[in-house]
Amino acid sequence: MTLANSDLQKLAINTIRTLSIDAVQKANSGHPGLPMGAAAMAYTLWQGHLRHNPKNPDWDNRDRFVLSAGHGSMLIYSLLHLTGYDLSLEELKNFRQWHSKTPGHPEYGETPGVETTTGPLGQGAATAVGMALAEAYLAAYFNRDGHEVVDHYTYALVSDGDLMEGVAIEACALAGHWGLGKLIFLYDDNKITLDGETDMTFTEDVKTRFESQGWHTVTVSDGNDTAAIDAAIKDAQSVSDKPTIILIRTIIGYGSPNKQGTSSAHGSPLGEDEVRAAKEQLGWDPDAQFLVPGEASEHFLEALDNGAALESAWDAKFDAYKAAFPELAAAYELAFAGELPDGWDAGLPVFDGEKKVATRNAISPAINELAAKIPTMIGGDADLAGSTKTLIKNANNTGHGDATQRNVRFGVREHGMGAIVNGLALHGGIIKPYSATFLQFSDYMRGAIRLGALMDIPTVYVFTHDSIGLGEDGPTHQPVEHIMSLRLIPNLYVFRPADANEMIGAWKAIMQLDHPAVVIGSRQSLEVLDGDNVEGIHEGVARGAYILAESASIKKGRPEVIIMATGSEVEIALEAFSALDDEGVKTRVVSMPCWELFDAQDEEYQDFVLPPEVDARVSIEAGVTTGWQKYVGAYGITIGVDMFGASAPYQKIYEEYGLTAQAVVEAVGELVE
Amino acid sequence: MTLANSDLQKLAINTIRTLSIDAVQKANSGHPGLPMGAAAMAYTLWQGHLRHNPKNPDWDNRDRFVLSAGHGSMLIYSLLHLTGYDLSLEELKNFRQWHSKTPGHPEYGETPGVETTTGPLGQGAATAVGMALAEAYLAAYFNRDGHEVVDHYTYALVSDGDLMEGVAIEACALAGHWGLGKLIFLYDDNKITLDGETDMTFTEDVKTRFESQGWHTVTVSDGNDTAAIDAAIKDAQSVSDKPTIILIRTIIGYGSPNKQGTSSAHGSPLGEDEVRAAKEQLGWDPDAQFLVPGEASEHFLEALDNGAALESAWDAKFDAYKAAFPELAAAYELAFAGELPDGWDAGLPVFDGEKKVATRNAISPAINELAAKIPTMIGGDADLAGSTKTLIKNANNTGHGDATQRNVRFGVREHGMGAIVNGLALHGGIIKPYSATFLQFSDYMRGAIRLGALMDIPTVYVFTHDSIGLGEDGPTHQPVEHIMSLRLIPNLYVFRPADANEMIGAWKAIMQLDHPAVVIGSRQSLEVLDGDNVEGIHEGVARGAYILAESASIKKGRPEVIIMATGSEVEIALEAFSALDDEGVKTRVVSMPCWELFDAQDEEYQDFVLPPEVDARVSIEAGVTTGWQKYVGAYGITIGVDMFGASAPYQKIYEEYGLTAQAVVEAVGELVE
Repeated sequence: MTLANSDLQKLAINTIRTLSIDAVQKANSGHPGLPMGAAAMAYTLWQGHLRHNPKNPDWDNRDRFVLSAGHGSMLIYSLLHLTGYDLSLEELKNFRQWHSKTPGHPEYGETPGVETTTGPLGQGAATAVGMALAEAYLAAYFNRDGHEVVDHYTYALVSDGDLMEGVAIEACALAGHWGLGKLIFLYDDNKITLDGETDMTFTEDVKTRFESQGWHTVTVSDGNDTAAIDAAIKDAQSVSDKPTIILIRTIIGYGSPNKQGTSSAHGSPLGEDEVRAAKEQLGWDPDAQFLVPGEASEHFLEALDNGAALESAWDAKFDAYKAAFPELAAAYELAFAGELPDGWDAGLPVFDGEKKVATRNAISPAINELAAKIPTMIGGDADLAGSTKTLIKNANNTGHGDATQRNVRFGVREHGMGAIVNGLALHGGIIKPYSATFLQFSDYMRGAIRLGALMDIPTVYVFTHDSIGLGEDGPTHQPVEHIMSLRLIPNLYVFRPADANEMIGAWKAIMQLDHPAVVIGSRQSLEVLDGDNVEGIHEGVARGAYILAESASIKKGRPEVIIMATGSEVEIALEAFSALDDEGVKTRVVSMPCWELFDAQDEEYQDFVLPPEVDARVSIEAGVTTGWQKYVGAYGITIGVDMFGASAPYQKIYEEYGLTAQAVVEAVGELVE
Repeated sequence: MTLANSDLQKLAINTIRTLSIDAVQKANSGHPGLPMGAAAMAYTLWQGHLRHNPKNPDWDNRDRFVLSAGHGSMLIYSLLHLTGYDLSLEELKNFRQWHSKTPGHPEYGETPGVETTTGPLGQGAATAVGMALAEAYLAAYFNRDGHEVVDHYTYALVSDGDLMEGVAIEACALAGHWGLGKLIFLYDDNKITLDGETDMTFTEDVKTRFESQGWHTVTVSDGNDTAAIDAAIKDAQSVSDKPTIILIRTIIGYGSPNKQGTSSAHGSPLGEDEVRAAKEQLGWDPDAQFLVPGEASEHFLEALDNGAALESAWDAKFDAYKAAFPELAAAYELAFAGELPDGWDAGLPVFDGEKKVATRNAISPAINELAAKIPTMIGGDADLAGSTKTLIKNANNTGHGDATQRNVRFGVREHGMGAIVNGLALHGGIIKPYSATFLQFSDYMRGAIRLGALMDIPTVYVFTHDSIGLGEDGPTHQPVEHIMSLRLIPNLYVFRPADANEMIGAWKAIMQLDHPAVVIGSRQSLEVLDGDNVEGIHEGVARGAYILAESASIKKGRPEVIIMATGSEVEIALEAFSALDDEGVKTRVVSMPCWELFDAQDEEYQDFVLPPEVDARVSIEAGVTTGWQKYVGAYGITIGVDMFGASAPYQKIYEEYGLTAQAVVEAVGELVE
């Protein structure tokens, strides 16, 4: 991998620029400025350093490249096309069109070579921290002397917008704290935002800020000086105990004679006249569109041979590793295939019901039994592990200068945590990475959760202290709208188990799920459901909703009334059931730990659980009622919390807020004569 | 205001400590460590510097004090009680109990003297930035030479957890950028978090980080050294062009012989034995509970005379100001009363319907006409003003060293923006402060929006680019679950107007609303509703939902089918209406711009708009359908977007996603024979 002579370099760099200009102009939508300004640094990184194999974008040990400034998507599309990925020129011409592989912002899963979805600023930078953390953990776990099978860099191209976002700053604080030496940021310091010059809003000393957070910094004063950029990347690579940010002064829209260096080059097509003018300025044929000069193409396509050679050298290395450490290699292969080892669920406990158990307290044995079988399952918490019960026992904490431990301690940085967990999942090799905090703070990390859902990656976001049931901490810490608002996010599977056995069932289901999941636990202790039928409970959880109890008098599966509940309110539903059953009301209780799984069942099962003919339905959940009408229908009654909580012992709040068996019985009375 | 001699100081400080210990122990819940460790700095600030009047917590020109580390709530409750606020010792004994004035975390509106609700970390620090910004703007607007009627400090006591949170870092970046010289943070640097020592997760150089963001810093090495703290506060006050953070090294749980300096003093009661031991160590009677020694009480209550004198001096100052500048003084009084000037809505435009208008494009005239009448209405955007159309014309932008302009430019810092806008509203004098960004990024600022809703303060969060209708930017920028998930937050009024005239109606309603509001605008152009009946439209918006169109053939207000829609989908509903009406189906179209206002109407109006007898109902909205069942019922059909969006021109997405008049007509066909 070497940079070309200066004429060819210029040609190659201008090919990136003009492809980007043309695609944005043709789509009549997009951001030409970043690709034009950052083309030289991208060229230098990709041609001089990035170890990747365009013919196998999934090669485990490739360097990761994240375009955090996702609005500059034509930069990465140009690079992917030019270096031989399966992304045709036709796709570039279809930029931002229906079903193209070139959506407005880079999307994981849509385009080969795109490592993560970016666009919402800060997320890419923070997710890159997660990728570098995965590399560090996996290297420490799998590598042996002379057998460095996990050994790659993670690069991210970041913008001023990225560096203003809290999510990025939180993740960068952790990267510096942990000392992620193989994480390298290239900062496109172009002094321009969408609305004008950055100094309108961003005058901080970025270099010093990063240094204060434990980063190595390098400055390049001319963003077109490929030799200086090349030297800076080498410098960054040479520092192994700190992440590096290379601050590269660029000119947005470089080459556009009338727009470069201004915000008018940022987020709109240049316009046809200016496209011509820019091409002329860049020494390009103004009439040519989507032109890839043969010499430039040939140069970029060196990545094919280079990539094949890199992967093949790694293959040989891996073979030697496999011969020397067959068991480790097998574990490696399993982990990178994303598969679970045999007997992964063998140790999961059954709760017998002798004493009440908070569902959060069933999270600890679930994680610990799973982690004991799955060595690359890691995760952590936002300074609440004592409460969320998510620590792996007999494992250490990450710390200053130490990124290689299983208990990832994120500090009070929820948003950064979410994005880092996304990065762990995207990297590969890490199984079901998880985060943990109070449900209340899911709000803080919602931006990251949504991206995990959009990418449909197998992350697990654990939340405890899930309602007014947390009591004294009061409404600032009592989530009432959060359960429902998480259910609204597409692709996200939200589990709110009713007891310790359902919690174990939830983890069993999640381990086999190919989607991101949320697990919600109670602070308060709850009755344990029948431990004799734990298989049935687990199966019920796997189907999302199931019949938990019903009156013996029910004929042909037709109850008079159905009570639906989740989580801690199932206990209340069962108490109401006893009273109603005693009164002779033919009552069914349905536990609904995961709506998304229930919605995915066939109609027969859905109708079996919730017979359409039965319209006397009551739901109870310690959260907002909007949404429950979906199951309760027009004639049912929803019992919930449609206002903020209160600070008091939780039993008092339940009583004052009317979340009681008595209230359920009265609601049933309204529906059933 | 002077500090006492050292014996009395100690007595006073230990009174704060022991009250906090006792209240937490009695509640058997809470955080004793922070009040014990930070008692000396709090004493020094409150007795030596804080200009406040306990008998009038609403005095306009009081210094603001924010306990950002809200878990240490007993610190502020102790101070409020001791300095003579309306907070009895009985209330302290009822800490964290039902309906007490001493909830688990400080809540605005529940306790006199609590300036903002805190607990979710980072929010208090960020909200304090908003208060200081309000002070700076109002001082520049109202003060005249020799008449400094707005002139106070904003203090915040912040913890390591606060300083890890992105929301705080974003807001601090702005405070430093703007140069808010009257903002002073006291950092309780106790080296302990809930889960252990801070160096497990937080090793950055905080002092340098703040300096890199334009702050002045002072360090105090001993948190019990009141003279050093006093000098540091004076130093901070002397720097007028930068905010200051005073880093004060403290010992968490100071006085507890076995727990101080450890995380076990952080979030749990000390336990009865340790309470006694701590009291002994502090030279306190171990048998005394909730003891306020007479000498300490007398000393703290000097705040009453001091406060009365301060306010009365200010009153005299204001009288002189009023005499010299009667019009300005009248404007001041109106603003601080939170009232609107006569004729505030006179300039609001009517759109005639000749051409299509994106609803975002009606936000600009709304804000500009209102701002022209209301000089202390200010707000801004997160680097998207060119798209959200929220700039006040003929007004300047905030900038480096300039906090006194009406267009508050927040940079790409959504969460910080939300919290700062909350601070603007809490300060008083600022009318309807607003933020603006894309609806997608409401996720980033949800933590702040929720607190605004919990406090029920009159903020306005503007969001544009509200659905798949934003087109090419793709699913990363297309909110599908956001409209509904905002509706789930209690107290929050969510407006999604259907056209430019409804948008104006929404702003009219919001200006008169005593709650926080969200305003949602479309990117794409939309037909304008009948400008001849603009009064009716505005009235309809004020009622939340109204009959927009119906077949002439409908008898006795009983349509065959009701089509409900909001925002850009009202246009589609009207198109379907035309087709159905032509076919002779008795159809009603209901526009529902604000669910919360509709739900607040009397039953008669609700039944008039949505007659219960009519169960053939169809809803259409370019977002998730969960939630619409509330109005559509069990037999209706919801048309929406229950998956992520796509990158393409928006008309194509609408068509492919089935959000068309044709789909509505077909749905009606399924319901009506």
